[in-house]
Amino acid sequence: MSGIAASILLIGDELMAGEIEDRNGPYLADQLTRQGFRIRDIRFLADDVEGIAAAVTEALRACRLVVVCGGLGPTSDDRTTEAVAQALGKQLILDEEQWERIRKIFSLLRGEEPPPGNEKQAKLPEGADVLLNEMGTALGYVARQGEDAVAVLPGPPKENQHMFEMQLLPWLDRHMPDRSRWAARVFRVFGLPESEVGHRLSNLETEYRDLRVSYRFHFPEILVKLRGDVEAEDRLKAASADLEKLLEPHLYSTGEERLPAVLGRELERRDLRIVAAESCTGGLAAKLLTDVPGSSAWMERGFVVYSNQSKQQLLGVPEEMLKQHGAVSEPVALAMLEGALERSDAQIGFAVTGIAGPGGGTLGRPVGTVCIAWGDQDRSQVETHTFYWDREYNRLLSAWMAMYLVYQLVLGRQSG
Amino acid sequence: MSGIAASILLIGDELMAGEIEDRNGPYLADQLTRQGFRIRDIRFLADDVEGIAAAVTEALRACRLVVVCGGLGPTSDDRTTEAVAQALGKQLILDEEQWERIRKIFSLLRGEEPPPGNEKQAKLPEGADVLLNEMGTALGYVARQGEDAVAVLPGPPKENQHMFEMQLLPWLDRHMPDRSRWAARVFRVFGLPESEVGHRLSNLETEYRDLRVSYRFHFPEILVKLRGDVEAEDRLKAASADLEKLLEPHLYSTGEERLPAVLGRELERRDLRIVAAESCTGGLAAKLLTDVPGSSAWMERGFVVYSNQSKQQLLGVPEEMLKQHGAVSEPVALAMLEGALERSDAQIGFAVTGIAGPGGGTLGRPVGTVCIAWGDQDRSQVETHTFYWDREYNRLLSAWMAMYLVYQLVLGRQSG
Repeated sequence: MSGIAASILLIGDELMAGEIEDRNGPYLADQLTRQGFRIRDIRFLADDVEGIAAAVTEALRACRLVVVCGGLGPTSDDRTTEAVAQALGKQLILDEEQWERIRKIFSLLRGEEPPPGNEKQAKLPEGADVLLNEMGTALGYVARQGEDAVAVLPGPPKENQHMFEMQLLPWLDRHMPDRSRWAARVFRVFGLPESEVGHRLSNLETEYRDLRVSYRFHFPEILVKLRGDVEAEDRLKAASADLEKLLEPHLYSTGEERLPAVLGRELERRDLRIVAAESCTGGLAAKLLTDVPGSSAWMERGFVVYSNQSKQQLLGVPEEMLKQHGAVSEPVALAMLEGALERSDAQIGFAVTGIAGPGGGTLGRPVGTVCIAWGDQDRSQVETHTFYWDREYNRLLSAWMAMYLVYQLVLGRQSG
Repeated sequence: MSGIAASILLIGDELMAGEIEDRNGPYLADQLTRQGFRIRDIRFLADDVEGIAAAVTEALRACRLVVVCGGLGPTSDDRTTEAVAQALGKQLILDEEQWERIRKIFSLLRGEEPPPGNEKQAKLPEGADVLLNEMGTALGYVARQGEDAVAVLPGPPKENQHMFEMQLLPWLDRHMPDRSRWAARVFRVFGLPESEVGHRLSNLETEYRDLRVSYRFHFPEILVKLRGDVEAEDRLKAASADLEKLLEPHLYSTGEERLPAVLGRELERRDLRIVAAESCTGGLAAKLLTDVPGSSAWMERGFVVYSNQSKQQLLGVPEEMLKQHGAVSEPVALAMLEGALERSDAQIGFAVTGIAGPGGGTLGRPVGTVCIAWGDQDRSQVETHTFYWDREYNRLLSAWMAMYLVYQLVLGRQSG
């Protein structure tokens, strides 16, 4: 994919030791990609002058923009600016104006002069453009080398992101305006293995070589992304239409909304309310549904019936039925659904009972066996699935499968 | 800290576009650091054969170990193995045994042959050692170049981390044994801001200069990590004892177990069972508790009472009370708890009612206002908290706070 090549360097020993989770990398990558840059790499480096300088030099060979974050503090281990100056063969100059600003901040906040070391924060490579930091003392800047630019931002996410938006983006629009923005479409697929999705789309990939098709297995769903030049909007439209046909009915959403939100919208549109009766998922399905802002319009109660006794007392599942068929059985799932619908004013609902694991499996009913019932007062259906993941994923998959089956019912489709 | 130089390469367009937050990088960096490796860099790269091959070659110049993650899927955009083979100048060979294993998995799970594309997952550079994948079809391996090694692991965090522990670590112990290991201890803290934790431990850091103290804010808890040479085990012990005193009672766990599991163990030890009545958390607390394997021993039912009507019908909260005080009030929280205890045979429980946001706030009760009641038949308490995060975090924090308050009660402590 074309676009102006860019590299992101994130500096800090603490990143090396896995002591903090970085938030700047994904943020900057996302922002720059939308802005028409092609991210060549995102690289975490220790606070080491030689290492940073070498990485900047290496990045400038392949990229027009290098964004360096972190290592701008006053302490002796922060040496990013020294390294950048070295890589560009530039002198370090004290910016009097910025040094004055830092001293003001100190006298304002602490009523004192800045400690030795802070002067370092006002130094930048000769000829660099200052990026003003409105949230801290660390100074940001862009140093140029011919057509190329090295932008240096502070590490703390708030300072980093604020400076990127308020200072660096305008700079880029002034100095690197020749960018073609990218259009992208995301498709959310549930109920197919990734390999099957790739198989179904293999022809489409060859048919639309000018577009980029990428996949992401974001358990338990698969995201398919189409990307292309905004100029090629019509191509994107055509490919999207083909793609939707190829993945029917498993393609349930285009865009950011995930299954619970999509299901909720369809319920609200039809003025339906849903009730959940959960054994093995233990509240997970209700949690996923109530994650959605405004879900009170279509989800108003749920039953977590983990024990047999609770299934009897809260949902009226007959004791004999539990004895005869076992708690993980289709009759019990149906009885749970029936009891939940009776004990709420929801028009539609689902019930989940299964063996999430790690324990509890038998030869006849292995770990991962899950019975899901769904429907309304007039018509209910039940399916038994056998999932093969761990406890966490079996539960997540069970909840999603239940929501997916209800979603297909609401749309008046078979789940296929 | 010194050690054998290692480089981590994480492959995937989705990482470049900031579409997902990586979890393998921090995990591998932490694990390898403990194992006596010095992480030179962690680098994210797009699914591009030339780019990956160049990065592997560049890393091998400075490092003895290069760990490459991701890009091993069956789809056409996964080309990591192709790139690694190119960088090492090796042929790609189909591993018949692994190909047979993949086909078995498919016929077992899906009763069908793997679709075209999966065969790719059984190919590896000539002479490489296979790392068996017990959780998926993607194949891992270690390809050697003289003294140096390139280890390739799948991208999905579960597969990645499982293969690292079960397969790559033993391989490293066999082929790169000359390392000085680091011992580490993790402490889990809930209910204190990160700044306060740092403040309480500032003296300890100066007192134990030979150890390394690091913090990680893993919402909603804070992880404190002590690290030092395995030889200094006694120093670790002493520092741990001091640290536990300094963070009482908020230090609730040492090690991997999180709050729900820790609470569950204490409940089981006392033969107590717990019931949850949830409004704003909508099943999240029950979900967190039933995430714990074997939770059926101490968690057997829960009520998701999102609407006022459900609070009345399922828990017997008086309509007048809801009218007079509003659903988000301490009397209602107490009434929900009382109703839940009456309608279950649990000896202890909690109730949560609040405004998670984004909507629903008022001047008197802003978004983030949460009333939590907890206790048993004899004695119940209630607190009102005001959280200032988004909907997701407010819900998570509410559920954790409720579990934390019950935990302190079970231990017979004040929450402090």
